[in-house]
Amino acid sequence: MKIEYTLIKTEKNTKARLGKIKTNYGEYDTPMFMPVGTQATVKTLSPEELKECDAGIILANTYHLWLRPGEDVIDEAGGLHKFMNWNGPILTDSGGFQVFSLAKPKDITEEGVKFKNQYNGDSLLLTPEKSIEIQNKLDSDIAMSFDECVGFPHTREYVEKSVERTLRWAKRGKEVFNNPRQSLFGIVQGAEFEDLRRHCAEELVKMDFDGYSIGGTSVGESKDVQYQMVEYSCKYLPENKVRYLMGVGDPIDIVENVIRGVDIFDCVSPTRLARHGHALTKYGKINLKNAKYKKDFTPISDECNCYACQHYTKSYIKHLINAEETFGARLLSIHNISYLINLTKELREAIKNDNILEYREEFIKNYYGRKED
Amino acid sequence: MKIEYTLIKTEKNTKARLGKIKTNYGEYDTPMFMPVGTQATVKTLSPEELKECDAGIILANTYHLWLRPGEDVIDEAGGLHKFMNWNGPILTDSGGFQVFSLAKPKDITEEGVKFKNQYNGDSLLLTPEKSIEIQNKLDSDIAMSFDECVGFPHTREYVEKSVERTLRWAKRGKEVFNNPRQSLFGIVQGAEFEDLRRHCAEELVKMDFDGYSIGGTSVGESKDVQYQMVEYSCKYLPENKVRYLMGVGDPIDIVENVIRGVDIFDCVSPTRLARHGHALTKYGKINLKNAKYKKDFTPISDECNCYACQHYTKSYIKHLINAEETFGARLLSIHNISYLINLTKELREAIKNDNILEYREEFIKNYYGRKED
Repeated sequence: MKIEYTLIKTEKNTKARLGKIKTNYGEYDTPMFMPVGTQATVKTLSPEELKECDAGIILANTYHLWLRPGEDVIDEAGGLHKFMNWNGPILTDSGGFQVFSLAKPKDITEEGVKFKNQYNGDSLLLTPEKSIEIQNKLDSDIAMSFDECVGFPHTREYVEKSVERTLRWAKRGKEVFNNPRQSLFGIVQGAEFEDLRRHCAEELVKMDFDGYSIGGTSVGESKDVQYQMVEYSCKYLPENKVRYLMGVGDPIDIVENVIRGVDIFDCVSPTRLARHGHALTKYGKINLKNAKYKKDFTPISDECNCYACQHYTKSYIKHLINAEETFGARLLSIHNISYLINLTKELREAIKNDNILEYREEFIKNYYGRKED
Repeated sequence: MKIEYTLIKTEKNTKARLGKIKTNYGEYDTPMFMPVGTQATVKTLSPEELKECDAGIILANTYHLWLRPGEDVIDEAGGLHKFMNWNGPILTDSGGFQVFSLAKPKDITEEGVKFKNQYNGDSLLLTPEKSIEIQNKLDSDIAMSFDECVGFPHTREYVEKSVERTLRWAKRGKEVFNNPRQSLFGIVQGAEFEDLRRHCAEELVKMDFDGYSIGGTSVGESKDVQYQMVEYSCKYLPENKVRYLMGVGDPIDIVENVIRGVDIFDCVSPTRLARHGHALTKYGKINLKNAKYKKDFTPISDECNCYACQHYTKSYIKHLINAEETFGARLLSIHNISYLINLTKELREAIKNDNILEYREEFIKNYYGRKED
């Protein structure tokens, strides 16, 4: 089935939306956070652990799975869900962002993007059609249109041309799209220019996608510029379709962008931070490598119900991280993913109670109010 | 409490023993295999996963925990069980083997072994008393005497002197031992010399330890020499005490040494093999990096009930290993540990049925009979 979004309410004082999305694998509340399983696994975690964290949709990367193990392997396995034993919805990106950020050198033409395979040096060409073909085979629940993610700095002229090409690519992808149980999203680009974001959004809406993503906001600009780009994009997106902000997962960014009308987020940060020994808490990010945790026999957070906080101390997790034991990254991944999922739960509650601005104030006071590490 | 060993029966045609050991954390059947949690974690696994593998006792390393995080941290945490959330018995080694194999250069004197801390270059001295003091603080259920593990090649003269020193060290350790809920084992050394093994065993038995370990058999000699050393050691050990063969975990070695009267084994091999993409099966060790598994959508073993075999295919695990995703090593660790624990179950069954020699024949036919990888 195609994904169905139902808007339940908009918060009284902001654009924050409480909603529900119906998927091939059940209904989920939005705003929501999606953990990232780049290579058909959310780093260090089992599917059961993700369910325990209350994960709904998870994300997998078309670019990585195309190169390894190849979409045909996953197709023959019976699709990505079966391959990786994930009995829940999966969203795949288009590979556009990875080609932008990982593949160098690259050559962008109307046809698509030429680049070298990072593993064996082979010349590869990713086109809008190819991206959709791969995603159709991966059999995710939600696929993304192939787009160009424009970095900073850039000229307005470049972005103008790029948006037009991204629109042509979206159209080409939609035309070959061929998986009845999969939904397809269009991606709003246009950098920091409101008129280009508007144009891109309006043209995509004319093509009638199953949902809309907001791209190009996580590529190194200031938070204020990011929030502005999100505002410009949401303003021209329909109320009855879900909005997904790609690659954004800093807690404050989730709060600020929910307020601006975003429904879904994804980010590698909770697992990446975990591998570096960092834990997200109400009182900010803490670094377990810090000597002061050596004999701290309390959990990461007293208020957290995750497996890591229920059974392990900072002292033990610090030891695991110092000793380069992957169980440390695993415990911190569970905690950090739980933290972000709980954050979206609290945001949903704040929308229900029409007090999300008070929630933001309190959040900022707690998260940034203490000197830590 | 001190560990209590009950001999249930000796197999009709061999010296294989079926037994039970009573520990602070319940009763366990022997022969048994102990997974190794070097740094207070069995690499990549949670305690719950180890329980699902039917693990009984697990092993932790005194040397590693002494250096990181330090025995005082673990003592203040309430002991090793609480520190690592393991609600089952723990055996700690003495550090002797690690000093022998990891610490270089080292200087062995009557007092103990001087060596450099591998992490910061500090000069360290591990003595029999220090080893016991650390283990008392770690609060494991079973502690080991500090011994010298003699490598190959060596002269008989060196081994003679070394055995005498190991006996003096065992006595010194026993004298300072001071943890009423912990058991202490003596370690039989003596290399390949029957009279030295006998002398060492008999002298240790006079000191009356709670159990006996067999050391120095996993240091690079041929399998035949290893089995011989085990025979020489078991021959002079009492029937009513448990016998632990240190660091041996190759499946055939478990079979052969159970036949020679060993009750307990430990080895890092199941988790180490896992990290290298290898799986233990009835039909030998397989290497999942092999191209032929790319589209093999069957489990590692049809007969295995472990979590990995119930939910994942060789194709997926191969992908995870290729992509350097730790979930791959985790799945293979679960499988390999389950394999070795199941092997000891089958051996217990063979002892019950007095057909362990037939079991060995069948085992060898299956394990070595197919050309693989």
